[in-house]
Amino acid sequence: MEHTYRLVISCPDRVGIVAKVSNFLSTYNGWITEASHHSDSQAGWFFMRHEIKAESIPFGLEQFRIAFEPIAREFDMNWHIADSAQPKKVILMCSKESHCVADLLHRWHSKEINAEIVAVISNHEDLRRMVEWHEIPYHYIPVDRSSRDEAFGEVDGLIEGYEADVVVLARYMQVLPASLCEKYSGKVINIHHSFLPSFAGARPYHQAYSRGVKLIGATCHYVTQDLDEGPIIEQDVLRISHSDSIEDMVRLGKDVEKNALSRGLRAHIEDRVITYENKTVVFD
Amino acid sequence: MEHTYRLVISCPDRVGIVAKVSNFLSTYNGWITEASHHSDSQAGWFFMRHEIKAESIPFGLEQFRIAFEPIAREFDMNWHIADSAQPKKVILMCSKESHCVADLLHRWHSKEINAEIVAVISNHEDLRRMVEWHEIPYHYIPVDRSSRDEAFGEVDGLIEGYEADVVVLARYMQVLPASLCEKYSGKVINIHHSFLPSFAGARPYHQAYSRGVKLIGATCHYVTQDLDEGPIIEQDVLRISHSDSIEDMVRLGKDVEKNALSRGLRAHIEDRVITYENKTVVFD
Amino acid sequence: MEHTYRLVISCPDRVGIVAKVSNFLSTYNGWITEASHHSDSQAGWFFMRHEIKAESIPFGLEQFRIAFEPIAREFDMNWHIADSAQPKKVILMCSKESHCVADLLHRWHSKEINAEIVAVISNHEDLRRMVEWHEIPYHYIPVDRSSRDEAFGEVDGLIEGYEADVVVLARYMQVLPASLCEKYSGKVINIHHSFLPSFAGARPYHQAYSRGVKLIGATCHYVTQDLDEGPIIEQDVLRISHSDSIEDMVRLGKDVEKNALSRGLRAHIEDRVITYENKTVVFD
Amino acid sequence: MEHTYRLVISCPDRVGIVAKVSNFLSTYNGWITEASHHSDSQAGWFFMRHEIKAESIPFGLEQFRIAFEPIAREFDMNWHIADSAQPKKVILMCSKESHCVADLLHRWHSKEINAEIVAVISNHEDLRRMVEWHEIPYHYIPVDRSSRDEAFGEVDGLIEGYEADVVVLARYMQVLPASLCEKYSGKVINIHHSFLPSFAGARPYHQAYSRGVKLIGATCHYVTQDLDEGPIIEQDVLRISHSDSIEDMVRLGKDVEKNALSRGLRAHIEDRVITYENKTVVFD
Repeated sequence: MEHTYRLVISCPDRVGIVAKVSNFLSTYNGWITEASHHSDSQAGWFFMRHEIKAESIPFGLEQFRIAFEPIAREFDMNWHIADSAQPKKVILMCSKESHCVADLLHRWHSKEINAEIVAVISNHEDLRRMVEWHEIPYHYIPVDRSSRDEAFGEVDGLIEGYEADVVVLARYMQVLPASLCEKYSGKVINIHHSFLPSFAGARPYHQAYSRGVKLIGATCHYVTQDLDEGPIIEQDVLRISHSDSIEDMVRLGKDVEKNALSRGLRAHIEDRVITYENKTVVFD
Repeated sequence: MEHTYRLVISCPDRVGIVAKVSNFLSTYNGWITEASHHSDSQAGWFFMRHEIKAESIPFGLEQFRIAFEPIAREFDMNWHIADSAQPKKVILMCSKESHCVADLLHRWHSKEINAEIVAVISNHEDLRRMVEWHEIPYHYIPVDRSSRDEAFGEVDGLIEGYEADVVVLARYMQVLPASLCEKYSGKVINIHHSFLPSFAGARPYHQAYSRGVKLIGATCHYVTQDLDEGPIIEQDVLRISHSDSIEDMVRLGKDVEKNALSRGLRAHIEDRVITYENKTVVFD
Repeated sequence: MEHTYRLVISCPDRVGIVAKVSNFLSTYNGWITEASHHSDSQAGWFFMRHEIKAESIPFGLEQFRIAFEPIAREFDMNWHIADSAQPKKVILMCSKESHCVADLLHRWHSKEINAEIVAVISNHEDLRRMVEWHEIPYHYIPVDRSSRDEAFGEVDGLIEGYEADVVVLARYMQVLPASLCEKYSGKVINIHHSFLPSFAGARPYHQAYSRGVKLIGATCHYVTQDLDEGPIIEQDVLRISHSDSIEDMVRLGKDVEKNALSRGLRAHIEDRVITYENKTVVFD
Repeated sequence: MEHTYRLVISCPDRVGIVAKVSNFLSTYNGWITEASHHSDSQAGWFFMRHEIKAESIPFGLEQFRIAFEPIAREFDMNWHIADSAQPKKVILMCSKESHCVADLLHRWHSKEINAEIVAVISNHEDLRRMVEWHEIPYHYIPVDRSSRDEAFGEVDGLIEGYEADVVVLARYMQVLPASLCEKYSGKVINIHHSFLPSFAGARPYHQAYSRGVKLIGATCHYVTQDLDEGPIIEQDVLRISHSDSIEDMVRLGKDVEKNALSRGLRAHIEDRVITYENKTVVFD
């Protein structure tokens, strides 16, 4: 994998942004390997992502930030620059279901995902052996009604302690407290086992079965305080028929969940996702 | 297209149904070209569809009905038998949008659909010329608040007059009165331009745009008194991205609507759909 | 539809292209509504497409060309600029099958495609009535072994006479002579009823049936002298099963053909396609 | 999972087969939970699969076989009956790529697949640790030109020794000798990383990249002596674009390979696949 910097920008739309930014890059001989733009004319907002060969630029991230800051200020940019050589630190949270965790662990193990899985947190012991085989620490933090605050205090401590960049709820069956949702806004990714906004809430496959839909789906989204209402990163669906029982749907759905979650997570850790107005721009 | 009879059955599930029916057919040398079964163990209900070469049986539909009636009674069957040589009579209802009507007219014109489109009813004049080119009568029945009852009385009269077997709401933008929904229960098919139950009601593409979903869809369903809540026959989706405006979604959605509607209608007119518990069995 | 200019560029890849072009645009206050880039590191080639609000630029296409020419020369660019207000002139060629022609005619009729269908040429009379209803001239040019050269001379004359920008082989069942393929290179689009390179040549559905594939497809591609070997613009597939006969596949395939062709044609007429090395870049 | 028997039949098509078989089942009070039929009118061949509640029948498989044999003879049936309580014994063969093996191991581990993975055979040591964590024996049998016969002799011995019902080539990068293909005909399943018949042979993603296709795929098929020509069980595809490098295609392709292989294997071990004329009937 090539060593690149990823420059990610969103700002009010106006003439000259691309020129200014690409001039800046070209001044320093920056070799652009990928460039994506989007302008939302309704919102009057502009989005841009560049991937630049690190070696083509004569300085590191710190100097880049200093040099770019005046441009950012001029255009009122929300922006950041990330280094592909510094893989993001990921914490997985799970319960008893193994398919999403196993899938992400294997993608990490086989170097398909450029991230560091620093820990797994679970409210059950079931997946400890699988996780520890990968030499990743497994933290068992049970959650019950009385100990909820304490438990999520502990979770918070771990996220801080590991300096995690991303928390992935890989079929974690507890609702995060609002305080954590807010504190780690834009950093917590969930997989919901339905094609949201259909069948939000509990037991979506049961809901889907009752309604008699002909496709089931999964939704990868950022977690916000409004349950199942956060910005959607990725969705996928699968055709079913009357002959599929709820059990079939649960089983078939696993593949859709794994795919939507791993694609959503990949987009996030490659700095391809920008959120605004409870929606996302995802630059492929 | 081969001349066949379609025997469609649903009944409480128990041992011996298939044996009894296939014995009956084999007794009369019925040559089965297609056979489909489904048993819903949760509902305790059984569904069956046979397609039989008409020429292989020594009598016509009337005698068939007489001969089969005792079996039907023994097993408490809901059943009917249809003749592929008697194409169903279809009335299309539309407003201003032409894509679904044009698509169905062409499929009919090119003999892709084995049905007879006997008339088109619209609350606008826009599509008259297109329809009349196909030599199909076009009935303009405007609907406004004051004339609603009268207008739908007229619609009802046309459905009766044409002895229509099916009414297709091909992007017809008026809500049918409850009385018609009930009178023609199981005979009125609608295309809704969203992946139901997401975005029921008006302006689903606008809803989808606001929610920032990554796939849009369409749903072909039977019309019931509960708007957008009837049994689903067919659904389809299409991937979109942040770069698609509402206008793009409307345009892209048309293809999904056409596909879902034409596939749903085909299933219906080939007697492949059985409804129960607000769901459908669709035998491919 | 907004009035825009589309600036389409391909050139050897090096630092500074984007900066130079976006500087140029920003100098003249060009408002970019869409920007797409691609660099093929293996081929060392760079591709770029900008869509610019026409009214934001202080001059027309001619002056634009003059002003931009030095930059184009500096970077060895293949480039052109197109005006969305000058819809491309399209000639459809067809035989007896109507589905692709009917689909394109309806998209044109309902203003879904921003192009002018100036004529239809066919080696059969079958579709005359359908075409003429749209008030489009229909040219019947039969092709048989003895009259082949003469027939295609006539076709050539029509393409020239209508000043067509694009010729669409909408299930036209004759092979174009090499001379025409060469003369109109990059301007003739075909729909092949298979997922190329599988089942090139004649009767692809029969081939697919024999091979027992589980998906069938269609391929929209530019016509070259090597039959079925030209650059692919768009492909699509559809799931089938053992229960689908060749007739079913032919019928089901029509929908895939229509979709692939209309999407490919749309990309072409919106100047989204750049060809190189017998492949295409298609900017969505 | 319910305890069932699966009765799988293919025979020349004629009137009365279904009646005879369902009569037989109903005589013994057999409770049919799934029934699938297919008749290939071109081939004049009939296919049937029943799934029957084991407890509903008054005898075991041996007596079933004796009782059914006269019927089978009368209709010239190829047939077998399988017991869901006797999971098939599966041997996986692999090389260095881990994604298919890891996927199947996890599906087995989480009881998603009703089969017993009795051993893994590889021509490399790379996946030993992963396999042995699952407490499955790992046999390292290197294959080089000089030792080929010997190596595959050893493989043959293991298949026999383990009494394997199925051998899965889960990205095993050696060609099986013709003798093994023949000996285990219908029992060896391969995943080919292309949408066959496109890009048969080596390095299909490189071939696909050169050809500039817009979709890539994978094919799960039975292994025959004709490389990549065996009966296809399952295929799947994925949309790509010009921006995907060969490396991207290899990575994206893995998900398609895993899905096609696991679905194909599931169909096989549930006795849903019948082969004839180098094709398959797959009863969903």
